[in-house]
Amino acid sequence: MIESKYFQMAVAAAKRGTDTWTNPQVGAVIVKDQQVLSVGYHHQYGQHHAEIDALAQLDDISQAKGATMYVTLEPCSHYGKTPPCAKRLAEVGIARVIIGQLDPNPIVSGKGVAMLKSHGIKVDILDDSQGLNRAYNYYYQHQRPLITLKYAMSLDGKINGAQRKRTLLTETAAQQDAQQLRRQQQAILVGEHTLTIDDPRLTVRTSLPMAFPPIRAAVVHHVDDVDVNSHLFDQSAPTWFFSETMSARKLPENVHVFVKANWTPAAVVQSLANHGIQSLLVEGGSRLQADFIAADLVDELVVYVAPTILGGDGLPAAVGQALSGPTHFETPTISMLGPDIRIQTKRV
Amino acid sequence: MIESKYFQMAVAAAKRGTDTWTNPQVGAVIVKDQQVLSVGYHHQYGQHHAEIDALAQLDDISQAKGATMYVTLEPCSHYGKTPPCAKRLAEVGIARVIIGQLDPNPIVSGKGVAMLKSHGIKVDILDDSQGLNRAYNYYYQHQRPLITLKYAMSLDGKINGAQRKRTLLTETAAQQDAQQLRRQQQAILVGEHTLTIDDPRLTVRTSLPMAFPPIRAAVVHHVDDVDVNSHLFDQSAPTWFFSETMSARKLPENVHVFVKANWTPAAVVQSLANHGIQSLLVEGGSRLQADFIAADLVDELVVYVAPTILGGDGLPAAVGQALSGPTHFETPTISMLGPDIRIQTKRV
Repeated sequence: MIESKYFQMAVAAAKRGTDTWTNPQVGAVIVKDQQVLSVGYHHQYGQHHAEIDALAQLDDISQAKGATMYVTLEPCSHYGKTPPCAKRLAEVGIARVIIGQLDPNPIVSGKGVAMLKSHGIKVDILDDSQGLNRAYNYYYQHQRPLITLKYAMSLDGKINGAQRKRTLLTETAAQQDAQQLRRQQQAILVGEHTLTIDDPRLTVRTSLPMAFPPIRAAVVHHVDDVDVNSHLFDQSAPTWFFSETMSARKLPENVHVFVKANWTPAAVVQSLANHGIQSLLVEGGSRLQADFIAADLVDELVVYVAPTILGGDGLPAAVGQALSGPTHFETPTISMLGPDIRIQTKRV
Repeated sequence: MIESKYFQMAVAAAKRGTDTWTNPQVGAVIVKDQQVLSVGYHHQYGQHHAEIDALAQLDDISQAKGATMYVTLEPCSHYGKTPPCAKRLAEVGIARVIIGQLDPNPIVSGKGVAMLKSHGIKVDILDDSQGLNRAYNYYYQHQRPLITLKYAMSLDGKINGAQRKRTLLTETAAQQDAQQLRRQQQAILVGEHTLTIDDPRLTVRTSLPMAFPPIRAAVVHHVDDVDVNSHLFDQSAPTWFFSETMSARKLPENVHVFVKANWTPAAVVQSLANHGIQSLLVEGGSRLQADFIAADLVDELVVYVAPTILGGDGLPAAVGQALSGPTHFETPTISMLGPDIRIQTKRV
């Protein structure tokens, strides 16, 4: 018998893993005779997988014998940072494993199930991700990161006033929401103009610290034209430049330069994908937005609309590269954040 | 004793007058011995005022003797299209009048109350408009129409695609809402570019016909450059052109041309005010929007946002004249109309 309450318990546990970085969030619950014996989850990239964490919570490992494990993702079958979980489950005598979804990572996919079965363990697959690991799933399905475009604009569709300086449009609640959005990303990208005008930190400023902050990425013409005092050169997170030329300067260790003559959005995304980045937040400015839209490389959109008009000479969102026709998104989800409107939607 | 239920009945009656044009919506309820004897309202511009309508609903005019009238607006005191209501109320023996708000029209304001009192009628003023006659009140307070700016834009703040033709962004529910918005206006204004590209009808296309459709207004350089086959030359509503030069053509009777060397938004608004127009809907295009914003002549804003991206070479909302700084609006009211977002707000 499959009990949805135990699966939901595993899903809730999975969500507690807030620092799993490029690893999936996974939760596991061990049940015997209608009793929950333990609950585990993957806490942080590099630490125990959820299955091993759940086993570690048992009073005595012998309790595992004949028990059922509910686990949100297929147990691994390969020797990575840890030995394969599927093997360990067999060793301790788990009799049955109920799996939320197969692991989309080809190193694991189906092999974990096969390993369990080869040890005589009964396996059920619910085929239900419960919305966990969207970027992780997307990455293995599409071989590139899930790309979210985010910007704040005025009621007349401008992201900046006329002056070549930053216009702060939104108030506290929307700003905090934008920090939470950053928190869910493995990389954040800006264009050279934004880098020069705003000198952004691109850090996640939330109360909970992050063991693996998103990589701060910027597309520039010549990396050595970037002011050495820019925030991106500080130590608060890794920084990746996509530059047309190499650096002749001695750069801090956390700074990496990728060199290519022409960094199209597709080339940047490919490079991020090659380095295992599963989620990307494109923050701006206007030209970078237009380039990503024109390349049809926007999967999700989060737009904050401030109750302000910037007027006739303000800088509109997404200016530059033309589209052959409109790009359609799903019916948005809208909410108010203080005086600002939040709009979220996905590519149709 | 003032009973709010009778006043609310009068407010509800007032709202039934959908064709009052530049006259206010007014409702009146006659009460005696805790009994409602009749309910009346101003049905249509040129017809009976609410007070007279309520009297006409009595079984016998003698019932009015000693009765109380609840009326949403101060009874008139002047001989206009009809004799003064205040005088008539005294004639039929109304003993007491409870008034929602004083009439802001200086021809009436306070004089109606004075006339009632001079005939020994007891008068109470609630000083509560219940949101009725916003444009009418605004017009007499500010000596100009209440101006609403309306446009539909994409998620990237564009009102049109790159091609010099009309882009229909929104779907049925938002389009119907925009028709209801037009219905509440006495004039609708577009710029020359919109006139040329869109050839708009600027009519109110709702199921209920209008006896007094909004005036269709357009700012143009030379009225005689406007294509004689344009919809604005049809008979469906009056059309006013604000042109730099006079017409040498024989124009239909419903077409009027105002001539001035330089039609700024302020000049257009002044001209509309001089002709008694109390509400104006500015529909576009982008330059006219920017001009009205720069002139600080936007009181209310209705923006429809379609879940579409028009991209880098689309035409942004409000392009042209610069502002010295952001123009702030109140926290908006938002709703979904099918897949489209409706945003409504007022100038702070």
